[in-house]
Amino acid sequence: MNKYLITGFSGFVARHFVEYLENTGDVYLIKGLDMHNPDFRFDHYKNVKIGFERIDLLSKEQVEYIIHEFQPTAILHLASFSSVAFSWKEPVQSFQNNTNIFLNLIDAVRKLNMDVRVLSVGSSEEYGNVSDEDLPLTEDHRLNPVSPYAVARVSQEYLSRIYTEGYGMDIILTRSFNHIGPMQRDVFVVSSLARQLVAVKRSGKKRGAIVTGDVSIVRDFTDVRDVVRAYHLLLNRGRRGEVYNVCSGKGISLKELIDIMAGQLQMEVDITVDERLIRPADNRKMIGSNEKIRRELGWENIVPLEQSLKDMIQYWEAN
Amino acid sequence: MNKYLITGFSGFVARHFVEYLENTGDVYLIKGLDMHNPDFRFDHYKNVKIGFERIDLLSKEQVEYIIHEFQPTAILHLASFSSVAFSWKEPVQSFQNNTNIFLNLIDAVRKLNMDVRVLSVGSSEEYGNVSDEDLPLTEDHRLNPVSPYAVARVSQEYLSRIYTEGYGMDIILTRSFNHIGPMQRDVFVVSSLARQLVAVKRSGKKRGAIVTGDVSIVRDFTDVRDVVRAYHLLLNRGRRGEVYNVCSGKGISLKELIDIMAGQLQMEVDITVDERLIRPADNRKMIGSNEKIRRELGWENIVPLEQSLKDMIQYWEAN
Repeated sequence: MNKYLITGFSGFVARHFVEYLENTGDVYLIKGLDMHNPDFRFDHYKNVKIGFERIDLLSKEQVEYIIHEFQPTAILHLASFSSVAFSWKEPVQSFQNNTNIFLNLIDAVRKLNMDVRVLSVGSSEEYGNVSDEDLPLTEDHRLNPVSPYAVARVSQEYLSRIYTEGYGMDIILTRSFNHIGPMQRDVFVVSSLARQLVAVKRSGKKRGAIVTGDVSIVRDFTDVRDVVRAYHLLLNRGRRGEVYNVCSGKGISLKELIDIMAGQLQMEVDITVDERLIRPADNRKMIGSNEKIRRELGWENIVPLEQSLKDMIQYWEAN
Repeated sequence: MNKYLITGFSGFVARHFVEYLENTGDVYLIKGLDMHNPDFRFDHYKNVKIGFERIDLLSKEQVEYIIHEFQPTAILHLASFSSVAFSWKEPVQSFQNNTNIFLNLIDAVRKLNMDVRVLSVGSSEEYGNVSDEDLPLTEDHRLNPVSPYAVARVSQEYLSRIYTEGYGMDIILTRSFNHIGPMQRDVFVVSSLARQLVAVKRSGKKRGAIVTGDVSIVRDFTDVRDVVRAYHLLLNRGRRGEVYNVCSGKGISLKELIDIMAGQLQMEVDITVDERLIRPADNRKMIGSNEKIRRELGWENIVPLEQSLKDMIQYWEAN
């Protein structure tokens, strides 16, 4: 029996992951954990049976109790304060939350001496400032975290190595680049842009203004449905202790994304740059290499960028 | 007026640091912090005026209050759970303590918006597993922490960089290699060896057995009196945001150290290896380069190894 424990269950990645499991046709027993209740229903699935518990992962005792009781065969750790901007505002809270919840989780598994695979989701932010000749970034590239959020992610990765090599645990790591897709919250840039464009369109105007940060920056975007397929593959066939980039291997600027969406909505856009949305120490350009996960696991990103954007627009049109 | 805040005040490095300040002839106001009371007196100094407070640095509010009240011109952060072995036994406690006390300290300085230089003392353990061709290790060598203790030290270093570059703070970093000297506690290997040898000698025997871990490992030892002089130089003339190895640049095996001490005590030694004292993932050989601190600050290690060992023996003979 597949028994998956999923932290950060109320987020959009978990939601897509559950959708993916449902469509595999196999039976899964899921225990979802989050500090917020999910704002979606999950009683309509046929293959996936879900129980949810609202807990604070900082509570060591509760985490241990749940893992002991549920006896997962795999753990997908998605929970985090994932905002780089927040980490600059509240560095201590952001760092301590992200490292401590991860430590509570893996240390519970260590103490219970369980045979369970853990997928530790990391971030492209771990690479930090890079120059163009380093692109696309491969997994052996030096880590150079330049925000409190990124330092916590690097710590999580180093701690995973300690628990794998020092305590014999079975942890697999990702460095996930930006993901996009329907149901993403609008604190993330592309979802925010889609929502703003839909609002302009809805007001009946053919031309409108949107507010954003620096639109010349280039990022590597993967559709969330490709991302969750990668996570499932990694949980099943990834190599213990290894790190995998999860990315498209292609870069695109925010300006180009806006143009594609404006085209899809048949409208003109004026871009207003809000200096407050420009983050300190931000990279101009960030592109990953997905050669390792393709070679080892046969993963590919199959959802075209245009489709992702169309689905995001549709999501905001309906919400 | 020089006002130094020193954490980990009850430890032997702080004690030597205070001795050093006293001998400079300048006047210093010191606020010492530790969770344990010091087991030495500090009311006999002429130039150095010392106040001590027993606090847990995990208490953010207390740390902020003391820094605000004392208004230090410099902070020497020596406090830590410094045992690698303990970090393997209690990884969560070790990691969280070491990163959280450091964060509480530097975040208090950030929030109070103070102009104060902080010396963040790190460790050669940050380099992790190295091969012989990497020696001597220079500061630009890749960090590869292989114990929970070392991961916390690397996190501390990355966080220092964030606070320096992102918030404009004035932090200087060390990667300090093993230090030795009188008054060192016998949880540290060389001090433990000296204590054992003195005990054998005291029993009247000319030949005795001591229990230790692997004595073939090679380490880079610096006398603590050279170390504190380096810390003082770094606080005064180090470059903001820079990392400096503090080391002798020379390697010596524990076996050779034992032989030198046995010679000084005019005795023969039989070595019994206790497997439990051999640490997982330990380096065979670890030697640092001190070229940077010598070149930039004119620092040199001047206390000969033989002198350090003699003083340690004398210390244990008297205690």
